[in-house]
Amino acid sequence: MKYDLIIIGGGPAAISTGIYAARKKLKTLLLTKDWGGQLNWTNLIENYPGFELISGPELVKKLVAHLKRYQGEDLEIREGNEVKKIEVENEHSIKVKTDKSYQAKALIVATGRNYKKLGITGESEFTGKGVSYCVTCDGPLFKDKKVAVIGGGNAGLEAALDLLNYASQIYLLEFLSQLTADESLQERVGNSSKIDIFTNAAVREIKGGQLVESLVYQERSSGQHREIAVQGVFVEVGTIANSALLKNVVELNQEGEIKIDAQNRTSVKNIFAAGDVTDVSGKQIVVAAGEGAKAALNAYQRLCRK
Amino acid sequence: MKYDLIIIGGGPAAISTGIYAARKKLKTLLLTKDWGGQLNWTNLIENYPGFELISGPELVKKLVAHLKRYQGEDLEIREGNEVKKIEVENEHSIKVKTDKSYQAKALIVATGRNYKKLGITGESEFTGKGVSYCVTCDGPLFKDKKVAVIGGGNAGLEAALDLLNYASQIYLLEFLSQLTADESLQERVGNSSKIDIFTNAAVREIKGGQLVESLVYQERSSGQHREIAVQGVFVEVGTIANSALLKNVVELNQEGEIKIDAQNRTSVKNIFAAGDVTDVSGKQIVVAAGEGAKAALNAYQRLCRK
Repeated sequence: MKYDLIIIGGGPAAISTGIYAARKKLKTLLLTKDWGGQLNWTNLIENYPGFELISGPELVKKLVAHLKRYQGEDLEIREGNEVKKIEVENEHSIKVKTDKSYQAKALIVATGRNYKKLGITGESEFTGKGVSYCVTCDGPLFKDKKVAVIGGGNAGLEAALDLLNYASQIYLLEFLSQLTADESLQERVGNSSKIDIFTNAAVREIKGGQLVESLVYQERSSGQHREIAVQGVFVEVGTIANSALLKNVVELNQEGEIKIDAQNRTSVKNIFAAGDVTDVSGKQIVVAAGEGAKAALNAYQRLCRK
Repeated sequence: MKYDLIIIGGGPAAISTGIYAARKKLKTLLLTKDWGGQLNWTNLIENYPGFELISGPELVKKLVAHLKRYQGEDLEIREGNEVKKIEVENEHSIKVKTDKSYQAKALIVATGRNYKKLGITGESEFTGKGVSYCVTCDGPLFKDKKVAVIGGGNAGLEAALDLLNYASQIYLLEFLSQLTADESLQERVGNSSKIDIFTNAAVREIKGGQLVESLVYQERSSGQHREIAVQGVFVEVGTIANSALLKNVVELNQEGEIKIDAQNRTSVKNIFAAGDVTDVSGKQIVVAAGEGAKAALNAYQRLCRK
């Protein structure tokens, strides 16, 4: 059985793509590991037009319910499916492999972004045991504890400010000689006696037993190693496009984002992409949703013009 | 007083632009005649992700309420203001004239689209007196009356089918030798005994006294003029970008749409555009909202990089 369209992803871009594809009666398969993507890391969303204030998980619920109205004859949804490989057989046949193999005339990639990792000793081992990438998700677990935040950009400083509600002490570490966050955030952080800032700090290791107990960093000015006792480490060094699957399939930019044109086309015919995994100039929920709609309509045009 | 940004428009693109600009603390003025644009012509919206089913006017209400949360210090809103002229003084100063004159460092045009007119005798005279461009708005006024629908594309056939709920008799007129609407719509129209189809029909005049009484068309095959008694005429010949103000200011495409790049930039520095007035490849509510967000963020980048 060959689908008209396979969509990979479960965030706002993928969901919007699914809604539009189903409404156009394309025989569509949507493959996703889970729902919501980066929305799950966000407590309060105030900038998705139409919802003045909504939590990330609540918006995910609404989007998924909306999509599932179309589940049935035209739209098949397979959750819990991790895509392992994408193969272009020819321009009318693209194979997408999970544990099974699926075939479609066109593909829309809407796999979003994920946290960037530090790649240091202890990071993977202690993920979920003190190491976190999401203050919104895990901040409350660190009530009255000492925590480190890695990253002196907007994300890092916002995380540190959020943690003021929970942690007893916050160490903010930045590799460069100064913070890069917006001035207004730097002011607010500077005003807090609970936040200590270390610049020129190269984080080297996360240590512990069952749970995180300390963090080792190197002072880049002196070369000396220092160890600070913390129960939590929040890694806030940015995000990265989930494009590994596409690496030798379509053209990516230097940041690893899928290059698209105004019709959401990639460098390979009949492969489209939408949302935060692409080089679109706004990484926002409503932009991703709009891009998904656009990708679906352009795929539809392409398939129906033949 | 000089604004950072002036936004022109009151539909989903303009509203989303306003929300994003205000959140970025740009000193912003939004000028609009009214709210909602094309949303006001739509009864049921099923494809704005997050709202499974909502009426056009209801979505307008939500969007406007969302925008007005930000009204205040940073965002000034002037409703009922028709823009008459746009003048580029230099690349850091753009003048926008209503009855007053306003000045900003950047401009975002989000003026949407409007109905295309026929340009025939009687059309303007009887607009609101039997001539309508919106079945959703005016259909119920024609209960048990005879009406004509001009246009054999999707919009025309959808209008005719909607009118089955009200009108006693519907004449569908198409200039070409055959209808251009989707097959499924043509089938449904063909199945109705209340709809008469005239192809090769060039509409020439709308006649009446206080209200519409008849419509004159020319049979293109024979050259003969025919007059049919109708109380209503629905013009459904498509839409056109509201770009007249920009005609000698920025580059437009052949359809009169404002040409934009991936950063929503027009051909003139510091003039951006978003939504259905542009050549964006999807004319959809969520696409317009996404484009508005993108335009605001790109204008912000531009203004803050200086």
